[in-house]
Amino acid sequence: MSERIVPRILKGFRDLLPEEAAKRQQLIGELCKVFSTASFVPIETPALEYSEILLGKGSGETDKQMYRFSDNGGRDVALRFDLTLPLARYVSMHANELSFPLRRYHIAPVWRAEKPQKGRYREFLQCDFDIVGSHSPICDAEILLVAHRALRSLGVEHEIRLSDRRILDTFFKNLGLGAKTQALLRSIDKLEKIGREAVGEELKIQSDLNEKQVADIFAFLELSSPTRSKWEIICEVAKALGEEPSAKNGLSQLEGILAYLDSCSSPECFRLDLSVARGLDYYTGCVFETYAKGKEDVGSISSGGRYDDLAGLYSKNSLPGVGASIGLDRVMLCLEDLHRNDREDPVMLTLSDRESAPEIFSIAELLRNRGIVAEVFHDFIKLSKQLRIADRRGMRFVVLFTSDGLRESKTCSIKDLRNSLQHDEIPTSQLADKLLEMRKNAKKN
Amino acid sequence: MSERIVPRILKGFRDLLPEEAAKRQQLIGELCKVFSTASFVPIETPALEYSEILLGKGSGETDKQMYRFSDNGGRDVALRFDLTLPLARYVSMHANELSFPLRRYHIAPVWRAEKPQKGRYREFLQCDFDIVGSHSPICDAEILLVAHRALRSLGVEHEIRLSDRRILDTFFKNLGLGAKTQALLRSIDKLEKIGREAVGEELKIQSDLNEKQVADIFAFLELSSPTRSKWEIICEVAKALGEEPSAKNGLSQLEGILAYLDSCSSPECFRLDLSVARGLDYYTGCVFETYAKGKEDVGSISSGGRYDDLAGLYSKNSLPGVGASIGLDRVMLCLEDLHRNDREDPVMLTLSDRESAPEIFSIAELLRNRGIVAEVFHDFIKLSKQLRIADRRGMRFVVLFTSDGLRESKTCSIKDLRNSLQHDEIPTSQLADKLLEMRKNAKKN
Repeated sequence: MSERIVPRILKGFRDLLPEEAAKRQQLIGELCKVFSTASFVPIETPALEYSEILLGKGSGETDKQMYRFSDNGGRDVALRFDLTLPLARYVSMHANELSFPLRRYHIAPVWRAEKPQKGRYREFLQCDFDIVGSHSPICDAEILLVAHRALRSLGVEHEIRLSDRRILDTFFKNLGLGAKTQALLRSIDKLEKIGREAVGEELKIQSDLNEKQVADIFAFLELSSPTRSKWEIICEVAKALGEEPSAKNGLSQLEGILAYLDSCSSPECFRLDLSVARGLDYYTGCVFETYAKGKEDVGSISSGGRYDDLAGLYSKNSLPGVGASIGLDRVMLCLEDLHRNDREDPVMLTLSDRESAPEIFSIAELLRNRGIVAEVFHDFIKLSKQLRIADRRGMRFVVLFTSDGLRESKTCSIKDLRNSLQHDEIPTSQLADKLLEMRKNAKKN
Repeated sequence: MSERIVPRILKGFRDLLPEEAAKRQQLIGELCKVFSTASFVPIETPALEYSEILLGKGSGETDKQMYRFSDNGGRDVALRFDLTLPLARYVSMHANELSFPLRRYHIAPVWRAEKPQKGRYREFLQCDFDIVGSHSPICDAEILLVAHRALRSLGVEHEIRLSDRRILDTFFKNLGLGAKTQALLRSIDKLEKIGREAVGEELKIQSDLNEKQVADIFAFLELSSPTRSKWEIICEVAKALGEEPSAKNGLSQLEGILAYLDSCSSPECFRLDLSVARGLDYYTGCVFETYAKGKEDVGSISSGGRYDDLAGLYSKNSLPGVGASIGLDRVMLCLEDLHRNDREDPVMLTLSDRESAPEIFSIAELLRNRGIVAEVFHDFIKLSKQLRIADRRGMRFVVLFTSDGLRESKTCSIKDLRNSLQHDEIPTSQLADKLLEMRKNAKKN
């Protein structure tokens, strides 16, 4: 027993201290409420899956980032690195038990052995919501609205920038660059992060474009300049792209989606932005990114889009759908400055003597029944010391008892540690009411 | 792309369908509320840790059950198999940032490569709450009360059976069996599960006891027969154990704890039971197990106890504490028969024509703002088909629109699919009120 183990944590992983954990829990609670009222249902899948399920189509990149190993039974297993492939497996396996379109959400940790950097961890929470099993653009509008509603409920002012994959696809094809589409999209995806100049360089070097081609691309992206109205942009893009049917289709769907969004509360939160590319190659229609206002440097806090074929890898039913992810860690970075502290301060019930302690316990229970966070001091020590500890722990209101008060008049006192004011002879039966009232007044001041 | 991957899940792991996931989430929400009002704070730790941290003192048993592997950086890592060792590491690492006694809770999955069996999975949710950093029996009483409060809030009628480790320890020592204590405790721990006869056999075979010794043990355990009052039992046990100081100390603490519990709402939920042994060897004082009434066969749904030294493995500060775990999966088994379905039925808003769809969307948003779970039908198909699908999905109330109604009189209709009654000409501005009222009436019937 004399040999001690150095307490340490893996690189890229982290503990949450109570305050951070409570804040995160509060945000998750808010998200669940928003998802539920929009008639989304939760699902759960295991953290560990067969590697072949998670590798999916298997790009080498994903493979390197996976926590993959042989389990005790010699199975090739891995920790999930997103919630999308597990969803695809889930809908394939449970198609008969689910009702489509499935409106599901899933909030759970995922693991990626990436190089850790500021705000990026190897274990992080993914908050996904999707509508699976319908081609209808109504579902796209629903997803966008729910993302908007969710961020608003978390208190993040934001702007959702949307586009349709088919617009840039067609534009590149018209330029004769169709074969390079994936690489071009990945470069354009970095615009917000590395800026126009760096993207221009990347386009020239990595995709071998000439000055003219780069200029054409930027001129096209400029069509969605924020100074133009949505409808103006749609007009201009239609003119630029001509009669190509998939682009026309994409544009008209975007127009429809915007009509839905505008009918709801905050249309100024949505903006058409042709540079929204989304690096991932499974998107086929509407795509979007979201930035917190004034915190654009944090990166996109919610993104998503429409895909044609979620489950094709596992099942003969191709399931179209649309979905989004909220980046809770980034959202928390955006909220950091706001110092939101919604946790009710606990009330400390001090202890006088051993005989009256059981009754003090029962009083704590009464307060808890009223929703008041109540803590009984944990030991019999001098009252002054109990008060000092309560103060150090940031408590504002402390309840004081005397054995006589409890036995004879059934009363107690409340002390406000911030101003040392003490209210005496409060009937214990009215303690909860009095505390709620004092708190309310304290908040006003 | 023609090669398909068979969708499958690892043995001992499981998906949760929406209904199960929603129920579990609801229960977790209840637990968090109970923990918070009792002034417990959440913490979080990574799923993955250095293996040496999780092995702790390292019994071979644990080792075999661990998902342990080499990560991409060659580190020896493992998935946590409980939340206790991570807590020990956490308090050692963050001692300076925490305030003690630390009242923390932690609800998170753990992984054990056990043989899967009914109600036992290789990934399951652990719900732990502890008070770390105090020897005071007041903390023991708090933990027991919170366990009781938590189970009551989940709707489980239950009985918490408690004892103190030092009682059986002393009794075995007095019998001259002190060296066999651990094995004896592990056998007695199985009483509820395998019955008296089987335990008697096990005591004889595994611990090499004679008939007389086995009879003595059972006679001692009989002292806590449910027909006796708590105070009677304490008296009898005191007589049987004599003057041994640690047993006297244990008994007097139990007496104190019971006084606290009795002062609170439901003292009949707590019972002294000398056969509560808890197999784990780190318990040193009060120990308890909890059974759902009429569902004893499910096994203990909450257990815990006091330990002397949580963090000694990682730090020179020995941290005493007391804590408990709630077995949420078992609790769900106990609730299964109750068919609790607290999820509000979603209301389906049907679609008439493309022109009025955006407005229907904005009406859905208004309902959601009032907390009504609302879903807009996802496509433009014949109304009769929309209704059939809503019905199949178990929805009771459906809102019908016509483009004239929306444009001219700003009204809509509500149809109750259960009795086909339809209420017409409801102003859309009053739709939420009307739905809430109809729901309330529907619940009464």
